[in-house]
Amino acid sequence: MTEDKPRLGVAMIGYAFMGRAHSQAWRNAHRFFDLPLEPHMTVLVGRDEQRASAAAKQLGWDSVETDWRRAIEREDVDVVDICTPGDTHAEIAIAALEAGKHVLVEKPMANTVAEAEAMTTAAVAARARGVQSMVGFTYRRVPAVRLAQRLVAEGRIGEVRQVRAQYLQDWLADAETPLSWRLDKEKAGSGALGDIGAHIIDLTQFITGQQLAGVSGMLDTFVTERPVAESFSGLHGTGGTERGPVTVDDAASFLGRLSSGAPAVFEASRFAWGRKNAIRIEVNGSTGSIAFDFEDMNVLHYYDATEPAETAGFHRILVTEPVHPYIEAWWPAGHGLGYEHGFVHQAVDLVRALGAGEQPTPSFEDGLHVQRVLDAIERSAAQNSTFTTIGD
Amino acid sequence: MTEDKPRLGVAMIGYAFMGRAHSQAWRNAHRFFDLPLEPHMTVLVGRDEQRASAAAKQLGWDSVETDWRRAIEREDVDVVDICTPGDTHAEIAIAALEAGKHVLVEKPMANTVAEAEAMTTAAVAARARGVQSMVGFTYRRVPAVRLAQRLVAEGRIGEVRQVRAQYLQDWLADAETPLSWRLDKEKAGSGALGDIGAHIIDLTQFITGQQLAGVSGMLDTFVTERPVAESFSGLHGTGGTERGPVTVDDAASFLGRLSSGAPAVFEASRFAWGRKNAIRIEVNGSTGSIAFDFEDMNVLHYYDATEPAETAGFHRILVTEPVHPYIEAWWPAGHGLGYEHGFVHQAVDLVRALGAGEQPTPSFEDGLHVQRVLDAIERSAAQNSTFTTIGD
Amino acid sequence: MTEDKPRLGVAMIGYAFMGRAHSQAWRNAHRFFDLPLEPHMTVLVGRDEQRASAAAKQLGWDSVETDWRRAIEREDVDVVDICTPGDTHAEIAIAALEAGKHVLVEKPMANTVAEAEAMTTAAVAARARGVQSMVGFTYRRVPAVRLAQRLVAEGRIGEVRQVRAQYLQDWLADAETPLSWRLDKEKAGSGALGDIGAHIIDLTQFITGQQLAGVSGMLDTFVTERPVAESFSGLHGTGGTERGPVTVDDAASFLGRLSSGAPAVFEASRFAWGRKNAIRIEVNGSTGSIAFDFEDMNVLHYYDATEPAETAGFHRILVTEPVHPYIEAWWPAGHGLGYEHGFVHQAVDLVRALGAGEQPTPSFEDGLHVQRVLDAIERSAAQNSTFTTIGD
Amino acid sequence: MTEDKPRLGVAMIGYAFMGRAHSQAWRNAHRFFDLPLEPHMTVLVGRDEQRASAAAKQLGWDSVETDWRRAIEREDVDVVDICTPGDTHAEIAIAALEAGKHVLVEKPMANTVAEAEAMTTAAVAARARGVQSMVGFTYRRVPAVRLAQRLVAEGRIGEVRQVRAQYLQDWLADAETPLSWRLDKEKAGSGALGDIGAHIIDLTQFITGQQLAGVSGMLDTFVTERPVAESFSGLHGTGGTERGPVTVDDAASFLGRLSSGAPAVFEASRFAWGRKNAIRIEVNGSTGSIAFDFEDMNVLHYYDATEPAETAGFHRILVTEPVHPYIEAWWPAGHGLGYEHGFVHQAVDLVRALGAGEQPTPSFEDGLHVQRVLDAIERSAAQNSTFTTIGD
Ligand SMILES: NC(=O)C1=CN([C@@H]2O[C@H](COP(=O)(O)OP(=O)(O)OC[C@H]3O[C@@H](n4cnc5c(N)ncnc54)[C@H](O)[C@@H]3O)[C@@H](O)[C@H]2O)C=CC1
Ligand SMILES: NC(=O)C1=CN([C@@H]2O[C@H](COP(=O)(O)OP(=O)(O)OC[C@H]3O[C@@H](n4cnc5c(N)ncnc54)[C@H](O)[C@@H]3O)[C@@H](O)[C@H]2O)C=CC1
Ligand SMILES: NC(=O)C1=CN([C@@H]2O[C@H](COP(=O)(O)OP(=O)(O)OC[C@H]3O[C@@H](n4cnc5c(N)ncnc54)[C@H](O)[C@@H]3O)[C@@H](O)[C@H]2O)C=CC1
Ligand SMILES: NC(=O)C1=CN([C@@H]2O[C@H](COP(=O)(O)OP(=O)(O)OC[C@H]3O[C@@H](n4cnc5c(N)ncnc54)[C@H](O)[C@@H]3O)[C@@H](O)[C@H]2O)C=CC1
Repeated sequence: MTEDKPRLGVAMIGYAFMGRAHSQAWRNAHRFFDLPLEPHMTVLVGRDEQRASAAAKQLGWDSVETDWRRAIEREDVDVVDICTPGDTHAEIAIAALEAGKHVLVEKPMANTVAEAEAMTTAAVAARARGVQSMVGFTYRRVPAVRLAQRLVAEGRIGEVRQVRAQYLQDWLADAETPLSWRLDKEKAGSGALGDIGAHIIDLTQFITGQQLAGVSGMLDTFVTERPVAESFSGLHGTGGTERGPVTVDDAASFLGRLSSGAPAVFEASRFAWGRKNAIRIEVNGSTGSIAFDFEDMNVLHYYDATEPAETAGFHRILVTEPVHPYIEAWWPAGHGLGYEHGFVHQAVDLVRALGAGEQPTPSFEDGLHVQRVLDAIERSAAQNSTFTTIGD
Repeated sequence: MTEDKPRLGVAMIGYAFMGRAHSQAWRNAHRFFDLPLEPHMTVLVGRDEQRASAAAKQLGWDSVETDWRRAIEREDVDVVDICTPGDTHAEIAIAALEAGKHVLVEKPMANTVAEAEAMTTAAVAARARGVQSMVGFTYRRVPAVRLAQRLVAEGRIGEVRQVRAQYLQDWLADAETPLSWRLDKEKAGSGALGDIGAHIIDLTQFITGQQLAGVSGMLDTFVTERPVAESFSGLHGTGGTERGPVTVDDAASFLGRLSSGAPAVFEASRFAWGRKNAIRIEVNGSTGSIAFDFEDMNVLHYYDATEPAETAGFHRILVTEPVHPYIEAWWPAGHGLGYEHGFVHQAVDLVRALGAGEQPTPSFEDGLHVQRVLDAIERSAAQNSTFTTIGD
Repeated sequence: MTEDKPRLGVAMIGYAFMGRAHSQAWRNAHRFFDLPLEPHMTVLVGRDEQRASAAAKQLGWDSVETDWRRAIEREDVDVVDICTPGDTHAEIAIAALEAGKHVLVEKPMANTVAEAEAMTTAAVAARARGVQSMVGFTYRRVPAVRLAQRLVAEGRIGEVRQVRAQYLQDWLADAETPLSWRLDKEKAGSGALGDIGAHIIDLTQFITGQQLAGVSGMLDTFVTERPVAESFSGLHGTGGTERGPVTVDDAASFLGRLSSGAPAVFEASRFAWGRKNAIRIEVNGSTGSIAFDFEDMNVLHYYDATEPAETAGFHRILVTEPVHPYIEAWWPAGHGLGYEHGFVHQAVDLVRALGAGEQPTPSFEDGLHVQRVLDAIERSAAQNSTFTTIGD
Repeated sequence: MTEDKPRLGVAMIGYAFMGRAHSQAWRNAHRFFDLPLEPHMTVLVGRDEQRASAAAKQLGWDSVETDWRRAIEREDVDVVDICTPGDTHAEIAIAALEAGKHVLVEKPMANTVAEAEAMTTAAVAARARGVQSMVGFTYRRVPAVRLAQRLVAEGRIGEVRQVRAQYLQDWLADAETPLSWRLDKEKAGSGALGDIGAHIIDLTQFITGQQLAGVSGMLDTFVTERPVAESFSGLHGTGGTERGPVTVDDAASFLGRLSSGAPAVFEASRFAWGRKNAIRIEVNGSTGSIAFDFEDMNVLHYYDATEPAETAGFHRILVTEPVHPYIEAWWPAGHGLGYEHGFVHQAVDLVRALGAGEQPTPSFEDGLHVQRVLDAIERSAAQNSTFTTIGD
């Protein structure tokens, strides 16, 4: 069955947090989903040969390169999957697209609007040659989120009136958590804003089917100096005695307006003690509401205001039924999915689009818009929170 | 026991939603709490004699007046309890204070800063003569809220870093809900902003022990015309065929900064389908967090970041233990309280302050500050959400 | 309005936990509900004159008697409200009924089946003379419970297939909590079984509209000796150095069958650390389910299996809408009720039945059936949990 | 890194629901965990060559056999993983053990006590030869469950006093769900009892560290005839017009006593509308409680009664911290796991035991005890629920 399918060679750059999550996706997607192409874990790229080789063995990649430029030129590579910090995205993505490789780049797409624009220009040009590109806003692929999008698109909550969204973590709340690239503006572009705020911007736009038209923002850095990391892996590190500056925001708070004019309220923080990965979004429409919290990721709450008052109430939908997005491929009802499944679904959607010769979503244009929102928030924050329109 | 205590004659003006809640408080407070003075339900004031008399019988008031001016001059009246719409607060409160009567005025204190300033001037003068005044921010008296305040004051979450607060209702989400005074700027001053936004401003200031120093806001009116009410009671009415304009905001979204500089995110809406009276506040500090939702009013969630990670997690505190605020007077653990208990506690706190000859809280100064915050939000909203400092 | 109504003189016996709850009901019921008769708090009965007088003043009763026999003979007394431990119920209730007074007796109705039978005989005889009687299974009057009953009766979950019910508290989990009458078989009849197990038996029968036909039970006493109380009030006391025996069960676990044959699983415990007053009942029918937990007493969960799978899920019904049982008399949606409101509703239902000259529910026959279930559980537990049929 | 490790050849028999879950485990365990042996997906066994070959390709197995006897004789096979219905377990397991292969057999271990005894005899004999065996009670490997076990073992809730456990599903609540092997006593041994009741028996014993000593049970079949399946896969099938009998129980309700004498209350049902895979267990000890619900599988609730009452409350532990069982190998805090991770952990624990030459748990002795409990429940149910001691 699977052997007859054309192969899709993947080169993955970076092999830490996202590298492991993407590897899990490439390894398993075709085991559960019927795909038009069969992904091959062709080459893993890392700068240190020894560590990269160890990672390749551990994660199941066939070969290793230490220079991403070599990887993107390989004939057996069809897709370049960029899992490195934001400062590297533009250069790698543009080169890969120009080399005729499809690109999946992690979010946020880039560190600046200028980079994102250059990437989008390259993507448009490549698309004309049948070369596709996509940004890794994985949380769109959580079944409950996709169900939310579907219900809104079908008019099940009427016209969108208000959105509230929060992304709350607490891994930086301890002032002794050491520095890492995420706290360095050069590497990360911004702090909570781009790292997690970008997700709730994307989710809002995805679920409502609208774009943010303007924002009013406020940025805060609570801890301005931290231990320099002796080692760091994932979100956890060990600090030494030396201290260095934090050059990004610790929390971003912003108001926004959707293209329809509907107001939205956002907050992204890595300082909310007790909230580990609480991605919450609630949309109120003229005839109902939907609400989601990633801390209970297999559940969507849906309120249908057209129901009789006697029994109206938020439906706690356990999004594990065969009729729910992506679920049929997995387990029986009630046997919930976990974090990594979003990455599997991302691979599935990408491979299906490639098989069909179509542009996957979110596109680089979508990613560019998120980048512009991030930029507008920073500009607003620098100007007394004045409402700032998002340009094209 | 109770008979020997000095009597405290109460005159209550207005006898609808708040009138019923306050009556319940005056009727029951001394049945559960040991009070220095014994409240008497002396006189109810209503403009229509017949309806006021019926209400007095129903609610248990000894007599009726149709002109509040008469009531505040009666010798057997010690406290004037103002339960009418905001446009009447200033005139009644000032006259009552000048007549030497203690005043309890419902929130928001007034419809404008100017009114609130005049009331405060009167209150300061009266206080010098031993005449006290208080604003009815009842939700401070929910045991879980008071516990939150206590934990924060005791340093149990460290230094306050962030606040998020929402007050969500849905009784206006139906575009056919008819007009009432709450949708009329003349009567109400503002819409969701002053009606429910005022509560979360007060709660934030109460729990953190800080004041808001500045805000950036956005106001929205989703439904601009509604049926004129044929009858209206509480939050529910019946509309006719005629339509009239809504002259206030339907939703208020705003960012703020506390005096310490800590950021806060707020939202007040009467359009959030499925949320009936969801007053939510979460405060993140440097060593912990507290979270509250009035939809589960007997519970406080508390995260203590100094606990070992193995068993750390939000404590779901059922705030019904004898050690919890106000609870000893009521029922055994687990036998929760309801909405109206906040009003009983308000009466208790007021009577105790009067018995001790002390200024109860929240004072008119506190109410005036909330009024200034409301005003600053309106000004910010009118100026592209520009951050607006709250003056004195 | 209220003055024109015939008065209903109440004599209440016992003035501690239940005495305070019933007083709150008699004081407030007619303030919110339109009643055919106006309750008067005529006389409070307590054995110690001084303490009874203090209680009467505190709680608002007009007079005091130290002998209940005197109270039931007073002309100004129409209803005798029995709030004393179970060992006194039969004697007082029978005497009151014979004296021509309506009776409200707290649950469990009696300490033995024989007592309950005698009481029922007296009640039947009295009923023929227009004298009514009722047992205080208050939790039936929680709006969410009554809504559950209504939905089941309307066929909204189809045919009842299974019930699970728990009543969990933890006030005895501490082995140093001192002895009180609830731990003395002479006074209380049984332990967790009759004290709280009786409630879930009644709730099951009330919600399903069926009776339990047989049971299989298990009783446990975890702490067999405790300090003798130096003082005790409500569920809390202070112990001395002396110790005495616990003569009742600490936990009751039992299986049952309803008249239809449907199985039910029950558990009553006062040793479940962290559960304060968790009364939980879930009923599964052929087309849906309902679930309730008193720790969230204003909520009913309802699953309608006829809804499309895409959005099916337990509805979290906030039982605070005007269309919900008892709610119209209270506050707007979302402004929840508390523990004591069940007692207000009980008074309302009783007074309305008396006004209409009808038998209120639950009747003494209903109470007798519960008593037979309790008895069958004890017999089953004594016979290796053998299934024991409940006779008539 | 991984290549240098000795290989562990796996033969898996059956490739439907469990086959897919186990494949996912064998495919991924060594990608996240450091294992002493490297699992190879050597051979998949299915009776239909074509379908088995398709499954092997889909799931990633190297080869196929249509007769399990051939598979267990292959030199490249070290472990036989039995994922077939219960009627086949004994024969395959015994043969495999005798052929010197380690065995992992799905739960319940067998359809009768006699089979389980024979299997255990074989396992004991094999163990002496270094050949190990294990039963697939996967839910033990949910991190929150393992944490519960650890806390209980460490005395964090004191002495165990009470247990309540439920396993609720609803996939049979619809009377038109067609027949499948799970409804056929010949194939399945029993119904809800063995299918899901076995899990909560095992979890209770695992978490408390005790065995059930006796039980009192009740079995029910609500729907006695169903459509004969035209096709069936997982828990879902399509029925034809023909009907056939259900020969097993639909629900099992039972009381039990642990070896210490502590009472426990159980319920297993596939008819609880709205509950999809609700495995709930709560243990109350002398100084605390733990509670778990698989519908929220990444959370453990823990109540510590030694905490001051002011802030005591169930800790909602998000079991996603590096200090939690199994978590370090996965994702950062808050990035929860799903259903299939239990199977990965099962493979990890098995491979580690095999690497260390140790008996993995649960052993066949453990499985046999569960079988005896199942049997005792059936005998009790047949004898008026009389308490039935579990023999050796
Ligand atoms: N979709 C999502 O939910 C998430 C997305 N991300 C995004 O994924 C990207 C990577 O983040 P993490 O995996 O968390 O970071 P990480 O720090 O765990 O891993 C970064 C990897 O990139 C490698 N790397 C760094 N600079 C490189 C260079 N110049 N050339 C080659 N390799 C280089 C590092 O060696 C490491 O393997 C970021 O853009 C981040 O924003 C991260 C976490 C979640
Ligand atoms: N603390 C809290 O949580 C709440 C506070 N409020 C505040 O309480 C006040 C009253 O609100 P509601 O009771 O909800 O309104 P409502 O419309 O239910 O009742 C208003 C009452 O005032 C009377 N009234 C109106 N104008 C009057 C006048 N000129 N002279 C004498 N009586 C007059 C009306 O006849 C009616 O009895 C408002 O300031 C409102 O903001 C309202 C609800 C909750
Ligand atoms: N419906 C419900 O939810 C509840 C019902 N109850 C029931 O209410 C009854 C009373 O329980 P609590 O109020 O909790 O007990 P308690 O101990 O708080 O009060 C008992 C009262 O009865 C008085 N008393 C005792 N023996 C007496 C006698 N021989 N003559 C006159 N007075 C006597 C005591 O002085 C005290 O005032 C019991 O039957 C109990 O089962 C109790 C709690 C809740
Ligand atoms: N640990 C857990 O949580 C779970 C355990 N199970 C257990 O796993 C076992 C299998 O159940 P499912 O996978 O759900 O059933 P299933 O019906 O989905 O799969 C059974 C598989 O066994 C094969 N099979 C049946 N008879 C066979 C035979 N004689 N020889 C070779 N293959 C045969 C079928 O072709 C099919 O591939 C059962 O013992 C069940 O109790 C099932 C579900 C969950």
